[in-house]
Amino acid sequence: MPSVSHIKIKDGMSILSLAQQMEAVKVLGPGRFGKAARILGDMFRDKNCMKFISLAGPLIPGGLRAVVTDLIERKFIDGIVTTGANVTHDVLEALGHRHIVGTENADDINLRKRGFSRIYDLYITQHSIEALEKATYRMLDRIPEQNRRNIGSFELLREFGGQLKDKNSFLHASKLRGATVFCPGIFDSMLGLHLWTYSRLRPLVVNPLRDFTRLVDMTYERKRVGVIILGGGMPKHQILIANTYRGGVDAAIQITLDRPDGGGFSGAPLEEAISWGKVKTPKKLVTVVGDATIIFPVLALAALQQQRG
Amino acid sequence: MPSVSHIKIKDGMSILSLAQQMEAVKVLGPGRFGKAARILGDMFRDKNCMKFISLAGPLIPGGLRAVVTDLIERKFIDGIVTTGANVTHDVLEALGHRHIVGTENADDINLRKRGFSRIYDLYITQHSIEALEKATYRMLDRIPEQNRRNIGSFELLREFGGQLKDKNSFLHASKLRGATVFCPGIFDSMLGLHLWTYSRLRPLVVNPLRDFTRLVDMTYERKRVGVIILGGGMPKHQILIANTYRGGVDAAIQITLDRPDGGGFSGAPLEEAISWGKVKTPKKLVTVVGDATIIFPVLALAALQQQRG
Amino acid sequence: MPSVSHIKIKDGMSILSLAQQMEAVKVLGPGRFGKAARILGDMFRDKNCMKFISLAGPLIPGGLRAVVTDLIERKFIDGIVTTGANVTHDVLEALGHRHIVGTENADDINLRKRGFSRIYDLYITQHSIEALEKATYRMLDRIPEQNRRNIGSFELLREFGGQLKDKNSFLHASKLRGATVFCPGIFDSMLGLHLWTYSRLRPLVVNPLRDFTRLVDMTYERKRVGVIILGGGMPKHQILIANTYRGGVDAAIQITLDRPDGGGFSGAPLEEAISWGKVKTPKKLVTVVGDATIIFPVLALAALQQQRG
Amino acid sequence: MPSVSHIKIKDGMSILSLAQQMEAVKVLGPGRFGKAARILGDMFRDKNCMKFISLAGPLIPGGLRAVVTDLIERKFIDGIVTTGANVTHDVLEALGHRHIVGTENADDINLRKRGFSRIYDLYITQHSIEALEKATYRMLDRIPEQNRRNIGSFELLREFGGQLKDKNSFLHASKLRGATVFCPGIFDSMLGLHLWTYSRLRPLVVNPLRDFTRLVDMTYERKRVGVIILGGGMPKHQILIANTYRGGVDAAIQITLDRPDGGGFSGAPLEEAISWGKVKTPKKLVTVVGDATIIFPVLALAALQQQRG
Repeated sequence: MPSVSHIKIKDGMSILSLAQQMEAVKVLGPGRFGKAARILGDMFRDKNCMKFISLAGPLIPGGLRAVVTDLIERKFIDGIVTTGANVTHDVLEALGHRHIVGTENADDINLRKRGFSRIYDLYITQHSIEALEKATYRMLDRIPEQNRRNIGSFELLREFGGQLKDKNSFLHASKLRGATVFCPGIFDSMLGLHLWTYSRLRPLVVNPLRDFTRLVDMTYERKRVGVIILGGGMPKHQILIANTYRGGVDAAIQITLDRPDGGGFSGAPLEEAISWGKVKTPKKLVTVVGDATIIFPVLALAALQQQRG
Repeated sequence: MPSVSHIKIKDGMSILSLAQQMEAVKVLGPGRFGKAARILGDMFRDKNCMKFISLAGPLIPGGLRAVVTDLIERKFIDGIVTTGANVTHDVLEALGHRHIVGTENADDINLRKRGFSRIYDLYITQHSIEALEKATYRMLDRIPEQNRRNIGSFELLREFGGQLKDKNSFLHASKLRGATVFCPGIFDSMLGLHLWTYSRLRPLVVNPLRDFTRLVDMTYERKRVGVIILGGGMPKHQILIANTYRGGVDAAIQITLDRPDGGGFSGAPLEEAISWGKVKTPKKLVTVVGDATIIFPVLALAALQQQRG
Repeated sequence: MPSVSHIKIKDGMSILSLAQQMEAVKVLGPGRFGKAARILGDMFRDKNCMKFISLAGPLIPGGLRAVVTDLIERKFIDGIVTTGANVTHDVLEALGHRHIVGTENADDINLRKRGFSRIYDLYITQHSIEALEKATYRMLDRIPEQNRRNIGSFELLREFGGQLKDKNSFLHASKLRGATVFCPGIFDSMLGLHLWTYSRLRPLVVNPLRDFTRLVDMTYERKRVGVIILGGGMPKHQILIANTYRGGVDAAIQITLDRPDGGGFSGAPLEEAISWGKVKTPKKLVTVVGDATIIFPVLALAALQQQRG
Repeated sequence: MPSVSHIKIKDGMSILSLAQQMEAVKVLGPGRFGKAARILGDMFRDKNCMKFISLAGPLIPGGLRAVVTDLIERKFIDGIVTTGANVTHDVLEALGHRHIVGTENADDINLRKRGFSRIYDLYITQHSIEALEKATYRMLDRIPEQNRRNIGSFELLREFGGQLKDKNSFLHASKLRGATVFCPGIFDSMLGLHLWTYSRLRPLVVNPLRDFTRLVDMTYERKRVGVIILGGGMPKHQILIANTYRGGVDAAIQITLDRPDGGGFSGAPLEEAISWGKVKTPKKLVTVVGDATIIFPVLALAALQQQRG
């Protein structure tokens, strides 16, 4: 039976070396982190693997916007499945608004009066959310009415990505690089409120079944599909369930603070998904328990450093 | 400054007495549980309060189906916002299938081979999910094609509720009692897969914007709106964001094991929602940290016991 | 294979009926809660079972002091293994001091200035902690010097329990009823600071090895040993490891919010303890995920209601 | 008001650069991780700061043994406060035994029969624990009986550290470099069982009050005290409470998966400790939510990379 190795640190060691030392531990947190780094590195290297990332939780407003955009730019990501909130915050920044450093111990009544809305310890101004309405309407108006009558979120966001001129926007980078952004619950967000009010004035039907067709088409005949799951929720579930038609994904890593015991899908281990045909094999699966806003940048760098040479 | 009281237990004491003893503690878990029981009791008693419950996580397959149905039967619930999974499992049971007692330490490859799919320690047969397809098609066929071309999930589920003849089904009870069931991510479930395949054969467009219109209409002019949040996800967010048009909900309790520090909405305190205009006041808000499948039945009973006399 | 039952609530139903309904669910939270209620009820009924409770986390200041005391009074508990903090707070209340209702969003610098110390949302005055010093010295002085030169925490706390005249004190009730209170880390608390300063002035050696001898003696030849674990930490470990000499405990329930994945003992499942010889069999073991200050009073009542007739 | 920056990753970037990018985010996980890296780097650089590390959870068996030892070797750590388990596992490895790679889904009854004991997904043989007994007795016998009659854990472990000849042992490195190892609950561990049986044969009194005296003496007159808290439990509390005599520690970072809401000390924010006089100021405090076995090696490297030049 193999035994546990111990991490040896050296001052100048790279993130990749550290990840490899962690993988050698083989157990507990380090073993899982190291395995995730290797699976991610292999995924990035594999030209025949269609790569998806799911985004739930405040990743885009919380400092990871450029990380996600950069991976799309470099063509390491083919598909993104995201909450409406992450799309909202990407568009807000693309329009020139900024997220503000606040505190989690805020007086929310007072914040409201002062025109701020809060996500844990960061704020956004209600002013910027109002400005978003005009921009959303403008972007929607530029889409031919014919197309708006039955559109998938992926088509809508490709249009928005084309219209936004911000090189740090993940929507913009996706449009440029041919990555597809799915937002199955797009209406359930501040941007979504603006879609809804628009739909009451002018024709707009966002049809989630179109998204699903596209998602199945993108994955069905691919040699391999790999998934990076940041947070849980519908983004996690959507990408996995779409892969049941091909017998499941080939590789997946997830980073989450949700726990499995309540039985909710967000915290469920990836192995459980095998029983649903959402995942093929336990070999290339790993859950890293942690905050994705901390863990993912480290993992991504370890994976990028495997691409050299 | 008020001081902490201590819970005094007596052998035959009722759940309501215990909840009142807990409220008197005023701090930590007991204080929050007791406060939640009182807010829920007040909500149930208030004829001018429109009452919603959000369902995320395995509540329906995990033993709470009859509890939810019972509250709808008694007209304590006007609206339900649920994940597609909870709808799927309600329909499965209404069709006569059963959830099976399993183990969380299962070999998922083996389960898959034997025809079982797993949610933590309970299983459902793949056979029953296949049977669900036929039933779903049959129920959809009975809806006039004209209606199917642009239908909200709440309209679809009202139809299904009418067609299912199981008095323990929360869809059925909702149809009978005039409660409205919203499933904003309905396609993201096993039932949803069947909706999708159907949509490729025959006309079907499930339009989430219709749901949102209905949800805003149901709440906009009501004197008061109260929300019971079990688990997080889109069900939690959808009901709260729809209330921004009326300045927020008046009362809310949530039961969750998700933690706030990652910044995700599922674990966010309800107070944060004040800054977004989703909640009106901090007075009638409380978060109980715990597993909703344990905590909610106890809370519901304490609230029901307040309705006597 | 058995199938999942659903909880049926009735307005006037007792806590015991609810717990039995939950046990019939068999899976997820309700199954575990119901099983815990039954194991606890069996434990209380079993005259040949030596029953221990471990206390970690703010149970005594947080509203459960009278619950613990009451169970000792009724002779349902033979041994208590506790953190020093819970002893400190029991003595503080016995001396007439009260815990104050505060808020978790306090300004701690300001609190310090105003003379308050904080545990989440409850406060204690620094004044009362200073008063504790005099009381501790007085109680120690009454113990013969000879005995103080090599004393176990259980002997010290039996003395204190005898000197405190508060019928709500669990130390006092333990002394009266012959229950033994162990505090393996007694010096690691506010009371412990006073023991330390005393030890620099007058003879005092608190010897943890005496505690361990007593704990082994209390359990070694008993027919059965059952354990109620509230929170983790050293109290949980101490009682389990002492039982390795008799091949492990016969039954155990634990209530905790700690998670297993980090590998720490506090969140570890009880099954793991079988591999260490700390627990005999998996049959009478269950972990309820939750906040013990909420869950335990409900469980205790369900167990008490099984003792009737 | 400052705004959120976004992390920019570059293939070859160092851990320090990444940590600095994270600190610039200023909010959520990255802001906390980045701040922790800076506080730790400052602490390491500060010759007038007495530096402590607390170890709870399976850090030593779980891959971090050489990391801790290395920091002691380089004189970045002056004091260690640890659980008995981490001492036990350090001695086991020093005696030539190895930790074995297992699985968290083990059959514990079977493991027990095969002679393995389990910590999540790693095993140790019961054979090695038996061998530990002889070694412990041998090491104890070499300590003059006079010293054994009233010994602190720090004195005992200095002796053991001198007798163990393993350069990877943190006990050995501590002895060599003059770092002091405290184990306030040493008897509550497998090593502790052997201390207990020894104490029944030959004179041995391990006196925790001696430890506390030494801990207060080590910190009382120091210009600054900084603390690295890995996991919670008594190690976390012991070092903080000992610093109340000097008005609290000057800087502290903690890494934990425990949550604050239950009110337990392990998950409590460091700010709360200000109200107890255990911490001086909120400026140099930060909690990183995560698994210390993953986060600490990364943080330690970022801090080491700040020491150059």
